[in-house]
This record gives sequence, C-alpha cells and structure tokens, in this order.
Amino acid sequence: MTGYKKSLIPVLITVVFLIFSCKNENTSASPDNNSETAISQEHPKLILTAQGVKDIRAQLGSIPIFDESLAKVKEEIDAEIASGIEMPIPKDYSGGYTHARHKRNWFVLQKAGVLYQILDDEKYAKYVKDMLMQYEEIYKTLPLHPKTRSYARGKLFWQCLNDSNWLVYVSQAYDCVYNYLTEEERNKLENNLFRPFADHISVDSPQFYQRVHNHSTWGNAAVGMIGLVMNDEELINRALYGIKDLKLNTKEKDDDGGFLNKDGKAGFLANIEEPFSPDGYYNEGPYYQRYAMYPFLVFAQGLHNVKPELKIFEYKEGVLLKSINALLNLSDADGEFFPLNDGQKGMSYYNSALVTAVDVSYHYGKQDPGLLSIAKQQNQVLLDDSGLAVALGIKNGEEKPFNKSSINLSDGSDGTQGGVGVLRNEDLELVFKYAAQGSSHGHYDKLSYSLYENGEEVLQDYGLSRFVNIEQKGGGNYLKENKTWAKQTIAHNTLVQNETSHYNGKYEIGSQHHPELNYFSSENKDVQVASAKEMNAYLGTEMLRTMAVIKDENFEKPYLLDIMKVTSNTTNQYDFPYYYFGQVLETNFEYSSPTTLKPLGGENGYQHLFVEGTGNATGENTKFSWMNNRKFYTLTTVTNTKDELLFTRIGASDPEFNLRRDPALLLRRKDSKNTTFVSIIETHGSYSPISESAMNSKSSIKTIKVVLDSNDYTAVEITHIDENKKLFITSNTNASKEVKHKVTIDGKNYEWSGSYYFK
Amino acid sequence: MTGYKKSLIPVLITVVFLIFSCKNENTSASPDNNSETAISQEHPKLILTAQGVKDIRAQLGSIPIFDESLAKVKEEIDAEIASGIEMPIPKDYSGGYTHARHKRNWFVLQKAGVLYQILDDEKYAKYVKDMLMQYEEIYKTLPLHPKTRSYARGKLFWQCLNDSNWLVYVSQAYDCVYNYLTEEERNKLENNLFRPFADHISVDSPQFYQRVHNHSTWGNAAVGMIGLVMNDEELINRALYGIKDLKLNTKEKDDDGGFLNKDGKAGFLANIEEPFSPDGYYNEGPYYQRYAMYPFLVFAQGLHNVKPELKIFEYKEGVLLKSINALLNLSDADGEFFPLNDGQKGMSYYNSALVTAVDVSYHYGKQDPGLLSIAKQQNQVLLDDSGLAVALGIKNGEEKPFNKSSINLSDGSDGTQGGVGVLRNEDLELVFKYAAQGSSHGHYDKLSYSLYENGEEVLQDYGLSRFVNIEQKGGGNYLKENKTWAKQTIAHNTLVQNETSHYNGKYEIGSQHHPELNYFSSENKDVQVASAKEMNAYLGTEMLRTMAVIKDENFEKPYLLDIMKVTSNTTNQYDFPYYYFGQVLETNFEYSSPTTLKPLGGENGYQHLFVEGTGNATGENTKFSWMNNRKFYTLTTVTNTKDELLFTRIGASDPEFNLRRDPALLLRRKDSKNTTFVSIIETHGSYSPISESAMNSKSSIKTIKVVLDSNDYTAVEITHIDENKKLFITSNTNASKEVKHKVTIDGKNYEWSGSYYFK
Repeated sequence: MTGYKKSLIPVLITVVFLIFSCKNENTSASPDNNSETAISQEHPKLILTAQGVKDIRAQLGSIPIFDESLAKVKEEIDAEIASGIEMPIPKDYSGGYTHARHKRNWFVLQKAGVLYQILDDEKYAKYVKDMLMQYEEIYKTLPLHPKTRSYARGKLFWQCLNDSNWLVYVSQAYDCVYNYLTEEERNKLENNLFRPFADHISVDSPQFYQRVHNHSTWGNAAVGMIGLVMNDEELINRALYGIKDLKLNTKEKDDDGGFLNKDGKAGFLANIEEPFSPDGYYNEGPYYQRYAMYPFLVFAQGLHNVKPELKIFEYKEGVLLKSINALLNLSDADGEFFPLNDGQKGMSYYNSALVTAVDVSYHYGKQDPGLLSIAKQQNQVLLDDSGLAVALGIKNGEEKPFNKSSINLSDGSDGTQGGVGVLRNEDLELVFKYAAQGSSHGHYDKLSYSLYENGEEVLQDYGLSRFVNIEQKGGGNYLKENKTWAKQTIAHNTLVQNETSHYNGKYEIGSQHHPELNYFSSENKDVQVASAKEMNAYLGTEMLRTMAVIKDENFEKPYLLDIMKVTSNTTNQYDFPYYYFGQVLETNFEYSSPTTLKPLGGENGYQHLFVEGTGNATGENTKFSWMNNRKFYTLTTVTNTKDELLFTRIGASDPEFNLRRDPALLLRRKDSKNTTFVSIIETHGSYSPISESAMNSKSSIKTIKVVLDSNDYTAVEITHIDENKKLFITSNTNASKEVKHKVTIDGKNYEWSGSYYFK
Repeated sequence: MTGYKKSLIPVLITVVFLIFSCKNENTSASPDNNSETAISQEHPKLILTAQGVKDIRAQLGSIPIFDESLAKVKEEIDAEIASGIEMPIPKDYSGGYTHARHKRNWFVLQKAGVLYQILDDEKYAKYVKDMLMQYEEIYKTLPLHPKTRSYARGKLFWQCLNDSNWLVYVSQAYDCVYNYLTEEERNKLENNLFRPFADHISVDSPQFYQRVHNHSTWGNAAVGMIGLVMNDEELINRALYGIKDLKLNTKEKDDDGGFLNKDGKAGFLANIEEPFSPDGYYNEGPYYQRYAMYPFLVFAQGLHNVKPELKIFEYKEGVLLKSINALLNLSDADGEFFPLNDGQKGMSYYNSALVTAVDVSYHYGKQDPGLLSIAKQQNQVLLDDSGLAVALGIKNGEEKPFNKSSINLSDGSDGTQGGVGVLRNEDLELVFKYAAQGSSHGHYDKLSYSLYENGEEVLQDYGLSRFVNIEQKGGGNYLKENKTWAKQTIAHNTLVQNETSHYNGKYEIGSQHHPELNYFSSENKDVQVASAKEMNAYLGTEMLRTMAVIKDENFEKPYLLDIMKVTSNTTNQYDFPYYYFGQVLETNFEYSSPTTLKPLGGENGYQHLFVEGTGNATGENTKFSWMNNRKFYTLTTVTNTKDELLFTRIGASDPEFNLRRDPALLLRRKDSKNTTFVSIIETHGSYSPISESAMNSKSSIKTIKVVLDSNDYTAVEITHIDENKKLFITSNTNASKEVKHKVTIDGKNYEWSGSYYFK
C-alpha cells in the first residue's frame, strides 16, 4: 500500500498539473455556495457539479485523503479496463457469476465516470460509453430474469431491487459522460436502455415500486436520478411522488411478510416521510438504514443540485441529515451498529454507504468537525464535491472527536411511536428498545435491551439468523431460524409471558402497536434513566420498564439498574432471560444439571433452547457472576424462593447448525399476576492471563431491595458491601420534569421534582 | 502514562546527574566483561554488580526504555513507602489477604533494594532494612502455616513453594543493602531469618526440596541465592547438589500425582540437567518453563557473577540460554505460548519472567538483535546489568525482527524422548507434540497437534481446566475436570482407541514411554514434514503420524496434510476428533441431530462430550467446512461408508460449568485393525461483515486418495479442483536423509532420496 501510494500519487499530480496548470480558475472549495445558482442543464449535476469538478481539479495533489481515494479507484478501474468488458446473459441468483458480474459492472461504470470528470482522460469516457452500448444491445432482448423467487423480478438481476441498484449507480456514470456522447448516442441509450429500464422497475413492477420500503427507495432514486440526467420531468415526478393514480391492494404481503402497501403511500418523499422519525430514526433500525442510506443521499444530492427549490435537505425539518447523526449514534465504541431487528452483527460505519453519509452530512450540513474524525477513520472520501469538502477539512486540521453521548430517538413518522434510547457513561452503553414493529424486519422484542462495554457485548441482542452472501448457508438468505428463533421474544432480554411472543408473534398485530415513553432523562450524567411502557404485547398485561445507568462513586464503574414492573389481570408464568457471554463463575443458589439436555419448550423460540441447569432462588437476592474476555460481571436480582433459575443454551432444534451456541440465565416466575423484576448488572474488574492476577473480581452489591412498589412509584434500596445505601425512586406515572412528588417510605418522607429520585 | 513519563524522567535525570556529575567513571556498558574478575565479596553481586551499578548510573537519563522502567518502579515503590509496611500474621491460602500481602512484600523489597543501588538514595535502603527487621521479628515466632492442604507447608505461606519465591526475591534485596547494614544487623537477619528460612524450605522440607521439579528449582535457587549473599558455601552446595546424603522414597507422589523423587536426583544442577533437553525444551512445556525460568536465570546470574568458574551459562552445552530460545519459539504470532499439557491459554512472552529471560539471554548470550525487538514489545527491561545492555542495544538501533521459523525440539534430558515440532509457513503454524509425559502436568495426548493461523487457533488444544488465581473457581486450583477431561486423550486432536486414553491414563505407565521421531524436515520451506511413532499408548497398536505443511502455488495458503497410520493386532474402534471453532457451514454427508443431547460415553473424558449430530460418510472423501472469525476452513478426509461422523460439544457432566462449550467433529471408525486416517485442513478466504462479501469461501481440494499404503510407504494423491494433481509419499521406515527410495504405484516408478517425495 505505502509503496503504491508513493508511486502513484506523483503520477496523478503530474497528470493533473500538465492538464490544468495553464488555467487559472477559482480554486476555492465552496461547499453549498452554488446550490441556488445551479444550472440544471449542465453536466455533471448529480453528485458532481461543473463547479465542483473545477474545484477538485484545482486541489488535486494537495488533499491527501482525496488523493489516496482517487489513486485506489484509478488503480481499480485501470485494471478493469485492461481486463475488458464482461457482459454475461443474466441467469444466476446472488452469489452466482452473472449476478456478481453485473453488480461489479455498476460500480465500475460509476467510478469510471467519476474518473473521466476528475482526470479528464477520455479513456474512461470511452470505456463507459462502450459498456453502456453493450448494455443497450442486450437490454433490448432481455426477458424477465429466469429465476423466479422474487415478488418483483428484474431483468439484469433476479429482483427489481438489484436492477434499481444498477440504475442508481449507472445514472451517475451516464451523467459524467453525458457531454462526451453525441446526441444520437444519448437518444439510443435513453430510448432503448434507460427509459425502458426505469419503466420496468416502476410502472411494470408497482408491487416493488409503489410503497414505503427500503426496496422502493432504491427504485424511486433510480428512476429519479436517471430522470434528472435526462431532464425528464415525468420520471422525476414519478420518483418523487410515485406512479400517478395507481393504488395497490393494501392487504398483500411481500416475501418477507411485510405489507406491500399498507396505506397507499409511495414515492421518494413518502419514503422519507414515513420511515424516518423527526429525530432521524429509521423504522427498520440502523442495519437497514445503512442499506437504504445510499439512494436517499445520492438522489438528494442530485435534487439539491438540479432542483434546489425543492430544498430536499430541509425536507421534514432536515430529517435526512438528522438521520445520519442518529445512525452514527446507533453504533458502539468500534463503530458497529447495534443489531436491532434483523441486523447482521459487524456492520459498521466503515461500510461504504457510511462514507457517503458522513461526507454528504458534512458538506450539505453544518460542517460538523466530529464527522471529519470518522472520515479519517474510514480513510476514504467520495470522489465528488462532498468528498472534496471533507478532504479539505481534514487537511486544514479542523477534525474533532465525534462524541457519542446519550440519546433518545423517537420512532414513527410523527415521532410518537416509541423509540430507542441509548444511555452512555464511561465505557458502558445501554441500548433500550421501545420502538415500533420496524416493518417486516422487526423483532417481537418490546422493551428489550442490550448492554455494551467499550464495544464488547455484555448482554447481547442475538441479531438475525442469516449469513449474508455466504452461499453455503441457505444461499445467503434469511434462514428459517430467523423466524423460529431470532424474531421471537425469548431470543431477547425482555419479558415473556406464558412462553408466547409479544403480539403472539404476529406482524399484523405488532404493526398496530408500539410502547410509549414514560420518561428519558440524561441531564445528570451520573444518573441517566429511560422508562417506557408497553400495554399491547400481551392482552391484559402492562409492562413498564425503567432502566438506569448509574455512576456511584462507591463503585468501580457505572452499573445498570433494571426495573420491570408487570401488571396483569391474569395469573401467568413470566420468563426473564439474560443473554450473557462466557464462563459461569459463581451463583448464590444451588442448581442441578441434567445428564441429558432437553429443549425448554416446543414453540415460539423455546424449542431452540437447551436447559443446562435448573435451580431455585434461595434468598431475597439471587446473584450470578460470570467472566468473559478477561472481565468480570455480576447480576444481582430480587427474587423469592419460588423463583426458578434456568441455565439455557441456544442450539436445540437446529439441525443445520444455523444458530450460535450462546448461553443465557433465565429467571422464571410462575403463578404471578402483578410482579416487579428488579436487577442490577455490574461490570467489574479484570483478569490478566499474563500476570495471572484477578482484580476486583467480586460484586460490590450487598443487597437490593424493593422498599415501595405502588401504581405511582417503585423504590429500590441499593446497599453496597461497605454498607453505603442509596435509594432510587422512579415515577411510574406523571413522570414529567415539572411534577413534584412526595412519598413516605418506612416513615420517612422523600420529596423531589421530576422523573426520579436518587440519593 | 505519557504525562507521567514526561514529568518524572527529568526529575530522575536531575537527581542522578546531581549525584554523579562530578565523577568521571568508565561509562561503557560492558556485558560480560567482568565475569572472570568478579570479586565475590563485593556487593551487590547477584543480578547487579558493583561495576554494573556504576555503568547504569552513568547512562541514566539517556536510555529511554531503562529510564521508563525505572520511573515506573520508582513511582510504585515510593507509593509503597508512603503507605507504610504491612506485616500480617500468615493465615490465608492464595487469594487471601495475608498471602497477597507477603507476596507483594517480596516484590517491593526486591525493587526497593534495586532502587537503592541505582539511585543511591538511603530511603530505599532504610525501608528494606525496616521491613527485613520486621520479618526477622515475626519469623522467629512463626509455626508452620495454619493451612494444611500442601504436601510441604511453608511458614509465611501455605506452601514451601511460595516461601521459596519470597527468598529468591528477598535475597536480592538483602544483597543490595548488604553494605548499608552494620555487621550486627546482618548477623541478626542471617541468624534469625535467612538461615532458618533456608533450612525450613530445604532440610526441613525434603519432600519439596530434594527432587527434580519446578517447585524444587525455586527452593534450590532460594537457598543458593541467600547462600551467595551470605557467602555460605554450605548453603551454596546444598543449592547446587541437593541436601547431602539424603535419599527419599522414590515411589511417593505429590499433590499433583507426580513422583516425589523418581530417581533420587536433586539440586539446582540436576534441575537443569533433567527437565531440559539438549535443545532447551522443558519437559513440562512452555507454560511451566515460563514459571520455572525466573529462579533458573536469577540464580544463574548470581552464580555467573560470584562463581564464574562454574560457567553456569555453558552448563550442559549452554542449555539455559538455549531454553529461552526454545521458549520464545513455542509461542504463536501474538507471543502466546502453545498450551501444551496443563498450560493456561493467554500466557505469553509479555509475562515478567520473560522480561528476565529475554534480557538475560541477550546480555549473557550472543546479543541476538532479534531479542531486542521482543524487549521493545515488552516495553520494559530489568533494572540490572542485563537490562542496561538491552536498553543500550535498543537505543543504538541494533534491533531486528525475531523471526520464528520451523523448529524441532527434542524432549528428555539426553534428547531421546520424543519432542515437539513446530512447522511454520506464512501465517500457518502446526504444533506437533510427540513429547514424553511431561511430568505430573502432562496430558495423555501422544502425537496430538494444534493448528494456528496468525495467532488464532484453527484446531485447538484444550489446555488445562483451571482458572489460575480466580478464587470463585475452586480457589484458583486445578479443577476436577482437569483430570476427567483436559488430560484425557479424547480432549486432544489425536487417536483414541476403544474410548480409553493413552497408557490407560496412568502416569506410571506414561512416564515410562514416549514417542519416537521418524523424521523432521524443514529444509524445503514449501514442504515441511514432521513424522513420529508411538508404540506404547495402546498395547499391540502402533501409531505413526506424519504431518506436512505444504505450500502449493495452486492454493491460496499453505495447507496441512495429516497421515495417521495405525497398525494393530486387535480389532478396535478408533475415534479421531477435530476441535474446530465457530459455525458449521457445509458437509458432504447427511447427518441427523437428536432432540435431546446425551453424553458420548461414561468415562475417560467421553462423559464430557454431548453428541449434537450423527451421520455416516457417503463417499471416499468426507468434507466439512466451517467459519470462524471471518475466515473459512475445510477438512477433507479419506473415509469409507462405514465411517461415522459425530458432531460433539464439550460440557456434559460438568455441573459447575467449569468447561468451555467448544465443538468438535469426530470421525469414528469401528471394527478396524490396520487403518490410515488421511486428512487435509485448508484455511481459506475471508468474510467481511462490512462489505458483506465472502472471498474464496470454498475448498480447493477435489479429492484426496491413498494410492499406496504399505509398511514402508504411504502415498497420497491430492487433486485440486482445477484437476492439478500432486503426489506425497512418506517413508514410514528408513526415513533418514541419505536413504534412496524407489516405489511403483499404478505401474509408474517414483525414485527419491530422503524422507518424503512430493511432486
């Protein structure tokens, strides 16, 4: 790499200066200056602008991160040009050759187009033209793709989604070589390739195009971007507002079980309107937002440049840029997104879509210097106007750390459908999910949470059951265990009643309801609390969960206090799992372990859990310590002696080894109506296998005790091993900041204003 | 850290220069120059010498890594002095307060003594004196330690081993303040503390002292080092040669099940003689060598300085320094030692004993510049003559990479008791164990292996079942599962006959036998082979295992070829496990998975394995692919359709969750006499959860086939998926390099000289 950089950059610089050194243009990079004056007939105009190209050319050779990104792309595309164009007749699913090749082609075309603009070297334009002409040649003859699995088949690919991906990229390439082509060439391409292509993914595939879904977003953007290049108002309007006068059956479902078009909305603006909350939370969660982000942002760039009057980046109070901030905040210390809903673990802000997001957000937003530090970690910028702005920011030393703090993100297009709260203190991160269903990718996990410490999972959210693009595992598609396990309530750190999932595991029911915020408070860094209520997951049962990240000077690190108050008009069995990792160290209860392992149940995910141990709580507090990755953890939870404790492990009824063999401790409380689960999770100490020394390996909690539990208040007394006592009182009702509260506990009066009391 | 360095070093420099700037001494660091002229009556003389102290003082402030190490120690000891001396009456086991405090005291004393010498500040000498006097005060009154678990109880600690640790360190402290003390003070300490202390761990505890064992090495070194300081020839001789005229019962055993004194040998020289092979392999393996290394090397330093005529570093052809090289070579890419026998994973050359080893090896050896790169990673040097030499080497830029290459280390005091071979190519490391029993810490795992890729385990050796110093897990001691699981043959990647362990799992039998090397060949980097034979693990059965790490240009990476040839005069069941990690991806055989999991057997470790799946081989090659840590792996093994395949997981009969829940694939061949297991393990490709792309996720092996299998030769034909064929022929007999071989396979003649043929 280093050698390559050394050798290539001077060449680039030389090339560029030979070409441009005689010109004396305005060399300032001026983010956003030209938006109001953009001339829509100029090319390029989507992600690059004529002025932007001038600026880039002027700065080349003096903007290291841009120069390096350019050098990498140039090397890649030069190799592609050298190896020649491949244009196979489509026949494979994803994973197969024809799929992979046409996918590769779309990236190559986009990059070659950009190189032509930046380096002004005709070989790139010619290459783009040649490949486009070959596409024009075959597209005319193509029937529907021969593979039949999709609800909306494409022509180049097995699904319209991928055809749309193609057009989103290729329209950029076309934009870059537009002026290089003759009018005759353009007419040929537009009439035989681009317009029929746009029609196929829209008017010919309304079940794909005419809805609010990340798939349609790609479709809308594809149609809109080619419309912008071709200056075709009809296509642009079809992109923005959907297919005119078309209404679909609102009851039909797609392959994933989601409604095809629940409320008849469609088009790019509806796709911004619906899935994003006013805080920028995307209803399917960060993993899918990352996927959807690219078409949102590149089409928005194009609209910003060509149709500034639309003020797309100000649409819905600037939600597109807010959503990028939300997305970045939904990542752990390593930049990996919290795997809410069907999220694959490991996806992070190093993904190329996030390069787009960060650069666009910086350029079209407020030039937040924190974004520059992420761009620097990404070590890559876009080869466009926004990438130039970022490169200049970094070059000029404007970078600052991107500080993720606690954040509460509302869900729902109007922000009233629950949300996701992230509480952060020191290295501890609590992700508390009280969001709505999350479309067809949602899990039945109301009021669930996951806990991280410095990027490591302490209590995990399982994520999805899928090995994306690993052909050996079901072709890389969703595995059946995604439905039978990963979506089920028992797969999550939340309450299960009578071994059934929330909303009976039914999408139709789940998508009608959502939890409600009780309060969110992060003003006092040492006592941050999120509290929310769910009333529809189980008929007749209410769950109110209050989670606090508390930093008490008597403890080494912040700890998590978890209060789940259950109120029911029926007698039930409640299961309350903790999905820890690592090695059991110690318990304060006796348990027996069976000689043979049997599944815990028969359905709703229970069929996937083996029981490795069973015991009963022996005191008012049950304690469980474990060790993982050289750190210690302790759960202390309030119990009664009828409570059962089960050690479980995922992996039963899993004949193809699709699931990870991860453990949990499950607290089971039978024959209960109203009850409150109160627990503290501590992370503490460390172990070094090098010095073989264990530091602070034991819990600092002596006892936790519920000293009041009424409709209005729940009060927990926390006693440290040094006998220091603290009292936490949460307001179960009337929790807004202004309200004054007064309660008497054991004859002592407590008064406070606001959501909670802690002293 | 940085802030601390910045603030403290100038202070140190100033201090040192104020004291010494008026002197004009010889400032050259002269490793080893003074050994022949050392005056044994000078002090200090153990790890520091009078000349060494002068040299160090002269260089202070200009030797960064030494200055930093010094600053850290000074900060640590200044804090200890400020907090005052603690001298509790002994009562706890390890993990308890009195144990931890006296352990801490020994380190503090040693460091304070060194600081006194280097900084010439009396406060350190006074502190050492005060604490020693307090030890003198209590030691007179101490009975045996009240805890009774040890076969040899100490007085300060529950076992003589820890008392010996104490004396090894404290004799260095005494040496450093020797001249600071009055003769009267010295007499008091020697008569009431040091001499009785040395007697207790030796003449009063012969079962601990008078044997060949890492425990005794500490005892010998302790007695010898205090003898050197006190100039007491009797103690020095007791250290070097054992307690005069004492013979112990050679049948008795210690707590670990090892013989107390199998052949009557004792003393430091016997402890060098016996456990180290001529190649420097330590018979218990690297984890225990690391532990034993410190007393070997510090006592050797003292002997080198005080009794140069003993030529201790040349003893047994320089085996002490050879052993350091062996130890460093028994670590993976991250510096972690291979967990042979009862080794705890994670122990590495960052352990402080290895700082001693690396510095001593550099200074008293041949100033290998590779050692400097390890010292630099350790980021710490000894505060003595050898540490100065290393610091100067680094300062002068003499550092070179420490290249670990393939190495064959014989076992046994004369090098004829088998050994350990490590084959390395690119990132792949094969550790092939054909060593002798390894004393009481040995496992019954003849001809077993583990496989690493760039520091990650591909096929693991389980290691030990113990959580060292983690009190919650059996007080940090060996867990019962160490005997019932970790030592058993089935816990290892080797052959098990009829579900019994090698040598019937009996130490008495195992310690009488060992495998024999057939050949080791690493000259051709592309085809490296280790081959060894075991004839006593099972009566009437011979196992010859030949393992080759082959780099074939048709493959992405080197692969492992494994040929286990079994010859038996009885009909047996053979089990052949592969302890992989991660997720099953694909098999070419059908298998069923049970609804309930049952243990595979009832004893010899089988009681700890659950069966998660069973199937039968369906063809001549069985294939199994898995994925771990974003990489792909494939096993291809020659089978017949009667072969069974079992998916197992550790964790049955483990009521306290002492074992890790790790998986294995087990190949079972029933009703067989002679048979040969032939397998290839490939590591290939990678997966990125960020780009979600899988590269080279499939095996490159089409088939492997045994085309000849006679008493003298086994020949394997390996066919690549591109149909390229290679033939590997191993010489099962007469494998020495000079021998010429000629065989005919399918009518074709093959001729070669030496151990194997590959083309």
